[in-house]
Amino acid sequence: MRQAGRYLPEYRALRERFSFLELCRNPDAAAEVTLQPIERLGVDGAILFADILLIVEPLGVGLEFSRGEGPVIARPVRSAAHVAALSPIDVETAVPFVFEAARRVTRALGGRVPLIGFAGAPFTVASYLVEGGASRDFVETKRFMYAEPEAWHRLLNILSTATARYLNGQIAAGVAMVQIFDSWVGALAPDDYRAYVLPHTRDVIKAISPGVPVIHFGTGTAGLLPLMREAGGDVIGLDWRVALDDGWRTVGHDVAVQGNLDPVALLASPAEIRRRAADILERAGGRPGHVFNLGHGVLQQTPVDHVRALVDTVHELSARR
Amino acid sequence: MRQAGRYLPEYRALRERFSFLELCRNPDAAAEVTLQPIERLGVDGAILFADILLIVEPLGVGLEFSRGEGPVIARPVRSAAHVAALSPIDVETAVPFVFEAARRVTRALGGRVPLIGFAGAPFTVASYLVEGGASRDFVETKRFMYAEPEAWHRLLNILSTATARYLNGQIAAGVAMVQIFDSWVGALAPDDYRAYVLPHTRDVIKAISPGVPVIHFGTGTAGLLPLMREAGGDVIGLDWRVALDDGWRTVGHDVAVQGNLDPVALLASPAEIRRRAADILERAGGRPGHVFNLGHGVLQQTPVDHVRALVDTVHELSARR
Repeated sequence: MRQAGRYLPEYRALRERFSFLELCRNPDAAAEVTLQPIERLGVDGAILFADILLIVEPLGVGLEFSRGEGPVIARPVRSAAHVAALSPIDVETAVPFVFEAARRVTRALGGRVPLIGFAGAPFTVASYLVEGGASRDFVETKRFMYAEPEAWHRLLNILSTATARYLNGQIAAGVAMVQIFDSWVGALAPDDYRAYVLPHTRDVIKAISPGVPVIHFGTGTAGLLPLMREAGGDVIGLDWRVALDDGWRTVGHDVAVQGNLDPVALLASPAEIRRRAADILERAGGRPGHVFNLGHGVLQQTPVDHVRALVDTVHELSARR
Repeated sequence: MRQAGRYLPEYRALRERFSFLELCRNPDAAAEVTLQPIERLGVDGAILFADILLIVEPLGVGLEFSRGEGPVIARPVRSAAHVAALSPIDVETAVPFVFEAARRVTRALGGRVPLIGFAGAPFTVASYLVEGGASRDFVETKRFMYAEPEAWHRLLNILSTATARYLNGQIAAGVAMVQIFDSWVGALAPDDYRAYVLPHTRDVIKAISPGVPVIHFGTGTAGLLPLMREAGGDVIGLDWRVALDDGWRTVGHDVAVQGNLDPVALLASPAEIRRRAADILERAGGRPGHVFNLGHGVLQQTPVDHVRALVDTVHELSARR
């Protein structure tokens, strides 16, 4: 899960010199941000610093990252005509800086821990394009998929093709595994997921270079887990809204799972954090194929000490098993 | 589910003369709003017009309904000291207008359709008090429950006691059944629900006048359904994020279910609405104990004709079974 960010003083220091987009586009700075949590937290993997919307810039929709508000799309994509007017995405010219950052991080890590790459899943990326930014109930996205299903599928095709290339480019640059973030897919009914999302996520996952593990993650997905598993992934990410043992049973024990501490729990006392980490490990039952993680990204107001305490606790309790 | 609101021209006309709070506090106007959808839509039940936060006004937290932003709490409740400083809630003096509206609607309906009363569940009401308004990730609410569990339980005790009295007051005024809205409880991990929420919701449900059916509703609850069932209710409300047959199996067929069309589906074509309604009825399988409903309230931009088409379709398809 995203482990760089504003809760780290060294990240905040860099952000005083660079805007968010400048950070993403500067391979040196992005590599530095990627490496920051490794020493500080003692985590077992590095997460490439990037944003899931970087690859949509070439579409010509007017992407900006406004301070405090997150991504804003000046010209939302809400019709077949809008989809037809999109410029093509050439991944190599769109995000060379991401690949360069991956190469630098891989070199700097020297195999100490693996580097994890990532991309947004077609649905979640499309939801920003259609809504024009973040959303609460995804009304425009659903309205578009219901009203113009063919245009919706064309849009998701464009995104899934670009996303697969993007992830394979990261892999060529050194990342050892990739995570696909379908962060907002939990807004959908299972049948809508099956009809409008699953085929495209499956296309992305099938196109990933063979042998590279894929983590498939979303939030609010307790009712979608069997379908997400059907879409693919070697590891299914669980958020905290489902008990880890129930979630694992639902996706099947022949697939690995990742999760699932509520990020807000890191605001509780270290003793409470320990109790919760132990509970998750207990539910995992020492079975191989559990990747301990948060159920979503680290919150900005999280004390760094608490994150470190969590990592240490998980290492200690896992070693005992 | 809430069926009055801005999508109805007759509601918008009333809102030109009254603010939202004025509407709630005026028994004549509230009764009129309650009755508006009955003829227009042909629904099988009337939903009392009110707001889940009306009963917290006596607490002295500075509740206001700002235009466009929803409820705002000027002095959020975030500590044991804040809880200790709350003024008591005397339901009879706090919301006499709700009871009066219920009496007028009951009289006007003359038994044609039942009147359904409602209240917010303790967690959802508390989340507004703690956050100071609507929230996306409920960080302050969770932080409070983790940091000061005793104060949290005291707060929820105050709310559950007032809520039970509030619902029993509505019943005394004529409502035939009640719905408890735990709209935002889906933000919680199952263990947090069990520890911090379930006992209080159960207290409310247990205190309801015997023989009056209770609908227990939340959104994003696919991972919480067994625990919500444990908390109580004759009918468990399902949102659209779980397939109706799966949700019903999860809560058990010895309890009734309500749901579960995505409100956004009402923006689709009438043919698509019909297809989706038929699918939900198919999943219910003609089993007694399914209350067809939306998975949440009607959206403001919904065409009234589409709502009417849904009601007609459900009546037609149900009669065929």
